[in-house]
Amino acid sequence: MKKDDKQGFGKLVSLREAKKIISNITKEVDDERVSLDKALHRVLSEDIVSDIDVPHFRKSAMDGFAVIASDTFGASNTNSKELKIIDKVIAGIVSKKKLKKGECIEITTGAAMPEGADAVLMVEYTEKEKDKLVFYKSVAPGDNVIKIGSDVKKGSLLLKRGTLLDPRLTGVLSSIGKKTILVKKIPRISVLSTGNEIISADKELEIGKIYDINSRTLIDSIKEMHCIPLDLGVVGDEEEVLKKKIIEGVEKSDLVIMSGGSSLGSEDLTKEVVQELGELLVHGIAVKPGKPVIIAKIKGKAFIGLPGYPTSALSNFHIMVKPVIHSMLGLKEEKNFVEAKLARKIASTIGRYEFLAVKLERSGEKDKEELIAVPVMKGSSAITTMSTADGFVEIDENTEVLNKRESVKVSLF
Amino acid sequence: MKKDDKQGFGKLVSLREAKKIISNITKEVDDERVSLDKALHRVLSEDIVSDIDVPHFRKSAMDGFAVIASDTFGASNTNSKELKIIDKVIAGIVSKKKLKKGECIEITTGAAMPEGADAVLMVEYTEKEKDKLVFYKSVAPGDNVIKIGSDVKKGSLLLKRGTLLDPRLTGVLSSIGKKTILVKKIPRISVLSTGNEIISADKELEIGKIYDINSRTLIDSIKEMHCIPLDLGVVGDEEEVLKKKIIEGVEKSDLVIMSGGSSLGSEDLTKEVVQELGELLVHGIAVKPGKPVIIAKIKGKAFIGLPGYPTSALSNFHIMVKPVIHSMLGLKEEKNFVEAKLARKIASTIGRYEFLAVKLERSGEKDKEELIAVPVMKGSSAITTMSTADGFVEIDENTEVLNKRESVKVSLF
Repeated sequence: MKKDDKQGFGKLVSLREAKKIISNITKEVDDERVSLDKALHRVLSEDIVSDIDVPHFRKSAMDGFAVIASDTFGASNTNSKELKIIDKVIAGIVSKKKLKKGECIEITTGAAMPEGADAVLMVEYTEKEKDKLVFYKSVAPGDNVIKIGSDVKKGSLLLKRGTLLDPRLTGVLSSIGKKTILVKKIPRISVLSTGNEIISADKELEIGKIYDINSRTLIDSIKEMHCIPLDLGVVGDEEEVLKKKIIEGVEKSDLVIMSGGSSLGSEDLTKEVVQELGELLVHGIAVKPGKPVIIAKIKGKAFIGLPGYPTSALSNFHIMVKPVIHSMLGLKEEKNFVEAKLARKIASTIGRYEFLAVKLERSGEKDKEELIAVPVMKGSSAITTMSTADGFVEIDENTEVLNKRESVKVSLF
Repeated sequence: MKKDDKQGFGKLVSLREAKKIISNITKEVDDERVSLDKALHRVLSEDIVSDIDVPHFRKSAMDGFAVIASDTFGASNTNSKELKIIDKVIAGIVSKKKLKKGECIEITTGAAMPEGADAVLMVEYTEKEKDKLVFYKSVAPGDNVIKIGSDVKKGSLLLKRGTLLDPRLTGVLSSIGKKTILVKKIPRISVLSTGNEIISADKELEIGKIYDINSRTLIDSIKEMHCIPLDLGVVGDEEEVLKKKIIEGVEKSDLVIMSGGSSLGSEDLTKEVVQELGELLVHGIAVKPGKPVIIAKIKGKAFIGLPGYPTSALSNFHIMVKPVIHSMLGLKEEKNFVEAKLARKIASTIGRYEFLAVKLERSGEKDKEELIAVPVMKGSSAITTMSTADGFVEIDENTEVLNKRESVKVSLF
């Protein structure tokens, strides 16, 4: 007698298949145009080509004097030369004078180069005596001058469609004077917790009951992805309420995530409700922890039922839901991982994807420091498993053993 | 003739001193009580001690049958035994029956253990025939039972004051039924851009003018730290407007950051304004890039004048302003860094702290993969320097040379 049969799981699908099935239902979200002050953490939905050069004028890289380089040739510590100062320019102001041989213009960093000038003599090699400049160094044409387009060239592809905008990139958009940009709309994701044992924090804690954890961790994980969560609350095993909530989620959001309705006890109810409202596509995925997953298509939207165990719900969020949200945003799956040596041997099961929570520790002396990944295992019912871990190692379906001191990639939380 | 004298910088202070001087003015922000749905990314201002055990009742870790372990002794594949099924419990429901010898109660994962039971027999080793259970395995007392307090012990210190709350930690707070928590208020930080050459994106781009970049990168960096930015806009070298804006910033926020008013050209004006409004404490810090920094105390608040160059303004934000904001929140300075080998030799200057933007590249074969830090240098005027880098290496005042292939710590953006 196999447990899988007993629990009513069909053929388990792989994590890869599960993600594909969900992504086939969830489409990329629509575009919208936003002003640049709303651009942070948004995903570009257009290529950004600069229509200006940055800088768009020649400017001084130093405080000093704009000169004709050939006027300075021969100057040295032992052989001073002189020029006539005919004007002074500071950043933002353009000199109306054109430089002729024997003349120079005092200039500050960032100011536009005067017409005729081809180099800047740094202030520290000069002495100013009223309108006479005495200097002790020669400069070559182009010295201390920032060229037009040296930072950004007009017509160049600056940022690609699908780029997630951070403060440095919103800065790049500012540098070319962008006022608005086309970005992906922010995905809206509904979160629902189910189970007769689950109560919200305002209820009395009786024997057999536990406080809802998954709503909090899932909603906050969605916020951390800069998406908009819709909190549908906690529902017991009440068919009609469950149906109403799922329909509300489907109508108001792009994706519905439910926790706790896919394991024994409540699975029958969830399956029934889901089949009545739409199409059940997956029941059970080949991952550990986190096997009891239900995937369904309801009114054209994706419904994902996650396990009720907090650790499993959250690990499935990281390895399955997060990549799906990324693809809704047209973002390439990008992982922030570090390499570390495994602290001990880990046995895994062929055909099953495994999520291994680890804590990172540094060991060894300076210069020979090593990063060690120490598996954290308190069981999937324990919320503190996740909170004491720094990240996780994904063990694919074809790996049976990870050896002690084997190099692993740790995805950081 | 030294440049420093010429530019009117006093004795340059070290980065460490500069941070200390600012931190002496900025105090830790006040506390406030928030509900748990507002807890994400906030900093705890109280120790969290659990006043319940998690779980607070013995529960089953498996789907199966709650038994008295001694009733199962001797059962095996070749020697089945039997028990009478007297009840069924699912998660959230408590059995009213007390187990006696020869009896068992069907139970689902997460359900409360019935009185008298001391172990759970997993469903896969059993066969159910009406109210008779036939089974082929013995269990020891405690098998498949989750003990009271195994995840969180009542009275234990769960989270410390000063902890930054992520989704896993808000989940931990949920697990003990916290409704509200004491956290640090969110710091409010004013941002002002100055310089006659700086224009906002709605203005015409003339020769000598450049679009404002620093407002965007600084405001978005503040948002990324989950603080509240106050955008004071762009001000030219107009004394009265500058004064008004700085006073507005000081009155409405906990910290005022200005960019562009501390280098030659506008420095005199800024110094004058700052000295009139308060006390000038620092003019010039020993870092590269980013030397021209003004630190002042105005009406009891800290004022930080950063360089106008986008790269310098942003690098100073990372190495100086960010740690100050962390200390306003009572957060320990925590760095997210990776180790990498430097791609080439870097010369630095004794007595000067250096910020080196680097791009990370992977090289070598699988299992022998190395992370290489490639210095990115387009000059501090180039906004694209930062946008093409992945992080930065900090070279302290006592280091003259970093050798090629030397191991360096790269702080990630």
